[in-house]
Amino acid sequence: MIGGGSWATAVIKMLSDNLTEKEIYWWLRDAESIAYLQKYKHNPKYLSAVELNIPASHISGDIAEVIGSADYIILNVPAAFLKETLKDVSPELLRGKKIVSAIKGVVPDENQIIGEFMNEHFGVPLDDILVISGPCHAEEVALEKLSYLTIASINIASAGDFSKLLNTRYLKTVISDDIFGTEYGAVLKNIYAVASGICHGLGYGDNFQAVLISNAVREMERFVDAVHPISRDIKESAYLGDLLVTAYSQFSRNRTFGNMVGKGYTVKSAQLEMNMVAEGYYAARCMHIVNNKYKVEMPICLAVYHILYEGHAPATEMQELTEQLN
Amino acid sequence: MIGGGSWATAVIKMLSDNLTEKEIYWWLRDAESIAYLQKYKHNPKYLSAVELNIPASHISGDIAEVIGSADYIILNVPAAFLKETLKDVSPELLRGKKIVSAIKGVVPDENQIIGEFMNEHFGVPLDDILVISGPCHAEEVALEKLSYLTIASINIASAGDFSKLLNTRYLKTVISDDIFGTEYGAVLKNIYAVASGICHGLGYGDNFQAVLISNAVREMERFVDAVHPISRDIKESAYLGDLLVTAYSQFSRNRTFGNMVGKGYTVKSAQLEMNMVAEGYYAARCMHIVNNKYKVEMPICLAVYHILYEGHAPATEMQELTEQLN
Repeated sequence: MIGGGSWATAVIKMLSDNLTEKEIYWWLRDAESIAYLQKYKHNPKYLSAVELNIPASHISGDIAEVIGSADYIILNVPAAFLKETLKDVSPELLRGKKIVSAIKGVVPDENQIIGEFMNEHFGVPLDDILVISGPCHAEEVALEKLSYLTIASINIASAGDFSKLLNTRYLKTVISDDIFGTEYGAVLKNIYAVASGICHGLGYGDNFQAVLISNAVREMERFVDAVHPISRDIKESAYLGDLLVTAYSQFSRNRTFGNMVGKGYTVKSAQLEMNMVAEGYYAARCMHIVNNKYKVEMPICLAVYHILYEGHAPATEMQELTEQLN
Repeated sequence: MIGGGSWATAVIKMLSDNLTEKEIYWWLRDAESIAYLQKYKHNPKYLSAVELNIPASHISGDIAEVIGSADYIILNVPAAFLKETLKDVSPELLRGKKIVSAIKGVVPDENQIIGEFMNEHFGVPLDDILVISGPCHAEEVALEKLSYLTIASINIASAGDFSKLLNTRYLKTVISDDIFGTEYGAVLKNIYAVASGICHGLGYGDNFQAVLISNAVREMERFVDAVHPISRDIKESAYLGDLLVTAYSQFSRNRTFGNMVGKGYTVKSAQLEMNMVAEGYYAARCMHIVNNKYKVEMPICLAVYHILYEGHAPATEMQELTEQLN
């Protein structure tokens, strides 16, 4: 596991609760968190109530050591920090390993989803790439609330193998061959959650929210069909379900961020106030650039981009958006 | 307008706020409400804060008089009371008029949606039937929160004409030719909202809720495609949007009812406690009977039916359901 945030901690919990015999190695950037985890078996910063029974010697700040020990490398840092995290990792070190993206974002500057990025910059064959996706807030995994994850890989057998390491009494897995659609869906849903938050902050109600999300899933479908035209049902949990949990849940950071912007905070002050950056903020810009190539009609993403990056007033921008929805 | 509940009151408000010149006639069953409305211009029982500027002489308990005065007859009583409401209305009285169903339910015993029922029992040509559907809680109309309604009719021009009587600054309309799909969608979503409430009452979280709704919209699609196989996008506001607003909103009576059942109330005591009957309760039984004919795979509807009518324990029934979702 590469990463020490709440989602990384949740996936570590699933992997340890799963009964298949396995060894788990965990890389975290923060030395204090490593020492705390080794001593107390709890992550001091995220899901702190969860006990994590990983041998102290398997928790390390040496990324080469952790990657060297493992067959599956689960990438689970914010997309914005992926390049920095992997700066000392060579393509050779990754050779023959399965790379699992648990990141829901686009690599800044490169404007690539994680699979594409690892394929192009580290020579990882697409066949060795897996994606974890699905409607799953880390906070509910910590509470052992029943959740479903989708494991995607072009190599379906490989997705099946990996899913056997995750299933537990509170976690079910679904298999998919759509690594591009699930990744783009996961990126887009963060932008839609920001949109949803902005509208809530502006005073729009539940009736409008339902219209917004119904339009958002159609916008998502148009985009992923343009980028990767395979047969898929966008209403499956990995796409629509993931959008719903993000746009409707109280745990969603993207929605909270949008809500503050809708209420009149500047983008900067909303970020400072939250003491973190919502993935949807970066995603709005990256997807705007990516869509320059595909030119899919994406009025909701465009409205969010205008508000976050071009200083458009949320009220007038959303008012214009309402004319384009149905 | 035939009916005096909150949705009837909300539609009266839209019709009066709309600027097209028109006369509005309103039938209510309750004599006290009629007298109060005539005197104070507020409905004493529903959305009581809303001022309703209908001439006193147009508000009446005489259904033949009200129907005789109007070109559009908006049916807006609970489906369970429709037969009783129309018992003194003859097919002749309705001849040449447009019948607008604002009811989201199935007529008990007949197990027909409103359009079918009016067509078969009152000889109303399908061409003269319209359906109002869409994600729209009456409570938010009262607050003038932006909402979207879908007006469906086989006769698209007729749907367009009627929509021109409803549009206002806080209400947008969408036109559709799918009178069967929109009605069945509106019926089914109440059952799914009950399911959603039951699961919430049992302690399932947001992650599972998203999976449930993602499966529900696919189940809805399977059913309406079997009953009325025309080209439609189930992700549109009239179907998915309506499902979302009902399953996720705090205003949803069906969700509240389900929640009580999930928490351990008997069906009877939940109904007594709420002092009303959720449409989804009747719909679960009617749709179970209707689906005997079509035999569509509908595990969510079946689970709700088992819980509400066959005494299955919510916890074990939903546990079994989780094995069938993905």
